[in-house]
Amino acid sequence: MIVAMQEKATEEQIDAVIEVMEEAGVNVHRTTGATQTILAAVGPTSTLDLSKFEVLPGVLEVHRISSPYKLAGRAFRPEGTVIEFPNGAKIGGKQVAIIAGPCAIENREQIFAVAACVKAAGGKFLRGGAFKPRSSPYAFQGLGIPGLKLMHEAAQEHGLCTVSEVMEISQIEPMLPYTDCFQVGARNMQNFNLLRELGLVRKPVLLKRGIAATIEELLLSSEYIMSGGNYDVILCERGIRTYETATRNTMDIAAIPVVHKLSHLPIVGDPSHGTGRRDMVPAMAKAAVAAGADAILVEIHPNADKAASDAAQTLFLGQFEQLMGELRVIAEAVGRML
Amino acid sequence: MIVAMQEKATEEQIDAVIEVMEEAGVNVHRTTGATQTILAAVGPTSTLDLSKFEVLPGVLEVHRISSPYKLAGRAFRPEGTVIEFPNGAKIGGKQVAIIAGPCAIENREQIFAVAACVKAAGGKFLRGGAFKPRSSPYAFQGLGIPGLKLMHEAAQEHGLCTVSEVMEISQIEPMLPYTDCFQVGARNMQNFNLLRELGLVRKPVLLKRGIAATIEELLLSSEYIMSGGNYDVILCERGIRTYETATRNTMDIAAIPVVHKLSHLPIVGDPSHGTGRRDMVPAMAKAAVAAGADAILVEIHPNADKAASDAAQTLFLGQFEQLMGELRVIAEAVGRML
Amino acid sequence: MIVAMQEKATEEQIDAVIEVMEEAGVNVHRTTGATQTILAAVGPTSTLDLSKFEVLPGVLEVHRISSPYKLAGRAFRPEGTVIEFPNGAKIGGKQVAIIAGPCAIENREQIFAVAACVKAAGGKFLRGGAFKPRSSPYAFQGLGIPGLKLMHEAAQEHGLCTVSEVMEISQIEPMLPYTDCFQVGARNMQNFNLLRELGLVRKPVLLKRGIAATIEELLLSSEYIMSGGNYDVILCERGIRTYETATRNTMDIAAIPVVHKLSHLPIVGDPSHGTGRRDMVPAMAKAAVAAGADAILVEIHPNADKAASDAAQTLFLGQFEQLMGELRVIAEAVGRML
Amino acid sequence: MIVAMQEKATEEQIDAVIEVMEEAGVNVHRTTGATQTILAAVGPTSTLDLSKFEVLPGVLEVHRISSPYKLAGRAFRPEGTVIEFPNGAKIGGKQVAIIAGPCAIENREQIFAVAACVKAAGGKFLRGGAFKPRSSPYAFQGLGIPGLKLMHEAAQEHGLCTVSEVMEISQIEPMLPYTDCFQVGARNMQNFNLLRELGLVRKPVLLKRGIAATIEELLLSSEYIMSGGNYDVILCERGIRTYETATRNTMDIAAIPVVHKLSHLPIVGDPSHGTGRRDMVPAMAKAAVAAGADAILVEIHPNADKAASDAAQTLFLGQFEQLMGELRVIAEAVGRML
Repeated sequence: MIVAMQEKATEEQIDAVIEVMEEAGVNVHRTTGATQTILAAVGPTSTLDLSKFEVLPGVLEVHRISSPYKLAGRAFRPEGTVIEFPNGAKIGGKQVAIIAGPCAIENREQIFAVAACVKAAGGKFLRGGAFKPRSSPYAFQGLGIPGLKLMHEAAQEHGLCTVSEVMEISQIEPMLPYTDCFQVGARNMQNFNLLRELGLVRKPVLLKRGIAATIEELLLSSEYIMSGGNYDVILCERGIRTYETATRNTMDIAAIPVVHKLSHLPIVGDPSHGTGRRDMVPAMAKAAVAAGADAILVEIHPNADKAASDAAQTLFLGQFEQLMGELRVIAEAVGRML
Repeated sequence: MIVAMQEKATEEQIDAVIEVMEEAGVNVHRTTGATQTILAAVGPTSTLDLSKFEVLPGVLEVHRISSPYKLAGRAFRPEGTVIEFPNGAKIGGKQVAIIAGPCAIENREQIFAVAACVKAAGGKFLRGGAFKPRSSPYAFQGLGIPGLKLMHEAAQEHGLCTVSEVMEISQIEPMLPYTDCFQVGARNMQNFNLLRELGLVRKPVLLKRGIAATIEELLLSSEYIMSGGNYDVILCERGIRTYETATRNTMDIAAIPVVHKLSHLPIVGDPSHGTGRRDMVPAMAKAAVAAGADAILVEIHPNADKAASDAAQTLFLGQFEQLMGELRVIAEAVGRML
Repeated sequence: MIVAMQEKATEEQIDAVIEVMEEAGVNVHRTTGATQTILAAVGPTSTLDLSKFEVLPGVLEVHRISSPYKLAGRAFRPEGTVIEFPNGAKIGGKQVAIIAGPCAIENREQIFAVAACVKAAGGKFLRGGAFKPRSSPYAFQGLGIPGLKLMHEAAQEHGLCTVSEVMEISQIEPMLPYTDCFQVGARNMQNFNLLRELGLVRKPVLLKRGIAATIEELLLSSEYIMSGGNYDVILCERGIRTYETATRNTMDIAAIPVVHKLSHLPIVGDPSHGTGRRDMVPAMAKAAVAAGADAILVEIHPNADKAASDAAQTLFLGQFEQLMGELRVIAEAVGRML
Repeated sequence: MIVAMQEKATEEQIDAVIEVMEEAGVNVHRTTGATQTILAAVGPTSTLDLSKFEVLPGVLEVHRISSPYKLAGRAFRPEGTVIEFPNGAKIGGKQVAIIAGPCAIENREQIFAVAACVKAAGGKFLRGGAFKPRSSPYAFQGLGIPGLKLMHEAAQEHGLCTVSEVMEISQIEPMLPYTDCFQVGARNMQNFNLLRELGLVRKPVLLKRGIAATIEELLLSSEYIMSGGNYDVILCERGIRTYETATRNTMDIAAIPVVHKLSHLPIVGDPSHGTGRRDMVPAMAKAAVAAGADAILVEIHPNADKAASDAAQTLFLGQFEQLMGELRVIAEAVGRML
C-alpha cells in the first residue's frame, strides 16, 4: 500500500497517518521528496480497507500495490486451471465447452428434447433452472428439486453433466445429488454467505459476474469460494449494465482476455444474458470464442418464443445446431476445438 | 403495450405478432397508417415480458404504456404514505426523520454512546448492523442477534426505534423482537424470496436501491413487498455505480423528486454510502433534504476512524451533532422540520 | 409517436396535449381504453423533440415509434453499403479491410516503415494523425499538413489509401489532396457543423462512436453527413466509458451486429482505443471480426513503446504481422476474407 | 509516479522499466521488499502518459501520486477564486449567483422579457445561445451574432452580464463585444484548441463538464485555459450519462463538494440539463445550493413549452420567480445569500 501525502501535509499529519498504518499491522517506509512525502506499507495489506486512510487529514491518495486476491491470481497457478467433470469433459483446457439448455426446466418432454439436441450437437453440459424467483409474484417460479431430477435424468441418458443455479444455502444440500456444477447468478455474486458454503462443497462452481461488478470484484468473490478449499471455480461474463439500451446488457468481451491475464481460472461467455436478444446471440458467441472463452453458456428451448422465461434471448434448437457448427470453425481458428 | 411494426413488415408477420399477443391474454387493437402498423394491447400487460415481442420478425419496437407497478404508484395513494413507529416518530410526513448509528454494532459501550448522541441531537431512529458478511473471510462478521439485543436495549433507554439489515429469510424471525424496521441492503434489492417474506411481516421495511438498479426496478421491488400486504415500505437512495471514481458511488439526488412524482412511498437519502467519504457526507445530506428527502440515514461512531467497517464514510459524533443543526435549518427552508 | 396519458388524466389535459401535438404538425388518433387514453401521432415525427410532450400535465410516457433516422436505416439500402476506394479496396463487402498505422505521423522514416509493413501484411489502408491536440499543452501536437503529405507519399508508394482525422472545418480543404478517408474522432461525433461540411465532401468519412454515445446517436450523426449527399459513411466502434477500469474503455462488440441489423452502413472495430492496452488488442480484434466487423482499425508503430502518443495501445510491427495471420483465419471462419 | 512490479518480475524487467522511466526524464527510487519491487519516480511526472508504463513486461500497476493539474488545484489558491464582473456581480464568493435565460435567443421580445424577469428576481446574469447546431439539420440553428446583440442590449438595460456559448474559435472574436462570460458546452470540454484560445481571452469562461467526463478531466480542461493566463474559470456540473433513464442525465451533486475540496475554482449547478425535466429543476436547484454551489444556471422562457429548443427542461418565468424565493432561503440556510 502506498499513501501519498498532500504537498502541504504537516509533520503532525504524516505522523498520524504512520500511526494508523502501524496500528493496522504493517511496517511503514517513509520517503520524503522535494515536494511530497510518500509512505509505503509492507506487510499483509490485502485485507486492509484503503478508504480508511484516504480520509485522514493531509492524505492525497492511497493505492494498493498488490492484488487484493491471492488464490485467484495467475501467479498461484501459472499453467491455468483445468476442471474435470464426471463425464470426462473439461473446462479450462484446449477444448471449448458448450453448456446449453433452457432458462427454466419446464417439463420432461422439454428437458429431454433439449438434452438430446445438446448431445447431438456435441455439447457436454446441460443447464436448466429449477428455482426461478421472478420480479412478478404471479409468474412461473420454477419446478424446484423435481425439475432438477428430470434434468439429471435427461443428462444421464445422454452422458451430459448438469449445471444449475443455487440461490440459497438451503438449496445446496438437496441439489447435490443432481448437480454437477453449481451456478451462482449475477445477483448473488456478492452473497458471501452462499459463496462461503460453496467453498466447502466438492463440486465446481460457475460464478457469474454481477451486473455492475468489476472484474476485480469478480475475482475477489471467486477467492471467497477458493479460500474454503474449493478451487474449481469457473468465471462467467454475462454482460454489464451501461447507458446503452440497444442490447439488454453490454457484454464485456474484453473481460475474457483480462481474466486470462490476471487469473488462472477458466472463463465462460454467456451471450444470451449478454445481449438479451436471440438475434445477437450467434455473433456474440463467436466473438467470445474468438477472444478466448473457455466455454459458451447459451439458452436454448424447443419452443423458444414460448419459453416460460427469458424467451427473447433463447435460441431454437435448430439455431443452436447451426451455431455449434459455426463455433467449431472459430474454435479451430484460434487453436482450440469444440 | 404498443407494438410498432417495421415499415416493411408483411401481413404474415403482423398476424403472427397478433397471435402471440392474444396468446398472452390481451386484446389487440390494430392501426395501420401510411407507412407503419401499430398494435395496441389492452388488458393485463403489466406482468408481460416485453422483450419476448421485440424479437419477433417484423417488429420495430415495443413499449409498455402503463406502469409495471400498481401498488407503489402515486395514483394508489395520492396523498402519500406516512409510516408511524412505536415511539411516535413518522417517516413520510412533514418531519424529516434522522436514522443514525454505526455500520456495525461492536459492543455495549459503543452502541449506548451512539444512542445517547442520537437522542440528544433529536434523532428518533438508531441503526446498526448485526450481520456483516465481508468480502474477506477474515474480517469482522458482526455480533449477530446478541448485538441486536444490545442495540435494542440502547434504543429503549433513549426512546428510539431500531433499524437493522436483514440478509436472509432465516434472520427475520430472530430479529423480530429487537427490530422496528427491517433494512434490505442494496445487494438484496432483487432477492425476491426475501422480499416476499418481508411482505408477510407487519413491520416497516427500508428498501435500498441496488448499486445498478433503476428507479423503476426499485419501485418494482417495493411492489413485491406490498403485494404481500405490507404497505409500510421506505425507499432509500444510496448511490449508484458510474464511471466517476472521485466518490465511492454517485448519489442520484434526483431519485428523490422522481420517486415523489411516481410513487406515494417515502424516500430516504443515505449520504454515507452515497459518497463513501466522511468529508462529503454533510454536503450531500443537506442536498438530500433540500431535494425533499423524507429521512436521512447516516453512519456515525464514537471512534469513526477506527470503526470495524465503513470507517471512511462514518461521521464522528461531534460532526453528526453539527450536521443535525445544519439539517434543521435546511428542513425549515423547504417547509419541513427535523 | 405515441403519447400515453396517465390513468387519472382529465379531458382538459388530454385536449391540451392534442393541441400541442397538432401545433407540431402531426395528425392525432385518439384511443380511449377502460383505464387509459393513448394518442398516436401520424406524420413527420422524426424531428420532434419528444421530451417536450413528456412534461405536459397528465402525460405518463411518450414513445417514438419510428426510427429517428431514415437515410442510415437498413430499409434505405437493404443490400448494404459497399464503399470503393481509389486503390480498389472496398469496405462493406465480403472482404474485411485492415486500416493500420501510428496514432501520430512522426517522421518520414516512421511512416514509410509502417506503410511497407501494412502493404506486406496485406492491408489496404494507412492511417495516421496529423493534428494531435493533447490534454497537456506541452505535449507533441502533430506535424500538421506536412505530416499528412509524408503519409500520402508513403501510401502512394505502396498502393495504400490514407485515413486521417479531421478536427475542424478549416482542415478539410488542406487535407483533401492527401486524404482518401476523413476520420471523425469520438469527441467530434456530435460536432454537427463539422459533420455538415463533411456531407458536402465527396470522400468517405469514418465516423467514430462517442465515448458516451448510444448506437442510435451514432446513426443520427451519420444521418447528418448523409443528408448532405455524402452516403459513404463508415461507422466505428471504439469502446464506451463504463465503470470498469481494467481496460481503458469497454469495447461494445455487440454494436457490430446491432448496426448491421439497424443500418446498411459498414462498421469498423477499433481494438486499440477499445482496450487501451497492447496486450488486449489481438483478442479483441479477433472478437470484432468474428462478430462481423467490416474492417479493423489498429494502431501500429515500429517503436511502439516509444510512440509519441497512445504508446500503451500500439502494436509493434511484428505483433501486427502475427495478428494479420490470425485475423485471416477468423475472417474465413465467418465466411469472409482479409 | 509509482510503478509496482509483479511479484515474479525479473531483474531484467525491472531494469527495463527503470530505463524507460529515466528516458522519460524522471529520477527513479527503487524499493525492493520481500515479495515485490516498487519504483518511485521523482520529478515532472504530471504530463507523463502512465499507460505507457502499465503495459511494460513485469509491471503490475502504475499510479500517479500527484495531481495531474497544478493551476486548478486547491493548493494554488487556498482561499478560493472569486471572479468579478463588470456589473459588480461576483461568482465564487459568499453570494450565490443566478444565471438565467432561454436556451436560444429567439427574438427581441423574448429576450427583453427574460432580462426584465431575471433582474426583477434579483439575478445578475442573462444567458442565451446564439449558435445552436442541432441534431437535425432542419431544426432552428440560432440567430447568431445578431441574436447576441439583442441579448447584450437587453442585459445592458437591466444591468445584467451576459453568458453565451462559444462553439468554435472563429466565434470568439465576433462574440467578444457582447459577451461577459464565454460558456464552453459539454461537447467541447475537451476541444483543446478552443480551450487554448480562450486561455488568451481576458473574460471569464464557464466550462461545462462533459457528459462522460470525470471531475479530474474537468479540472484538467480548466488547466488548459488557465495555462494560457486566463485564471477566471467557472466549472459547471450539468449531469452525466448513466444507465438511469428517469432523468435525461444524472446530476452528480457530489461534484460540487468534490470540486471545492480539490480546486479553488467556483462551481455552478445546472439543474436544467442535469435533469432535462422542468418538474425536477426546482428540487435539484435547491439541492445544488444546499451542497455549496457558487451559482445556478437555469433555463427560463416566457413560453417555456414552446421554446425553440430544450422546451421540456425550461421553466416558465413565474416558476423561476418562485424558485428564486426558495433558493434565497436555502442560500441563507447554508450561510450564503442570493
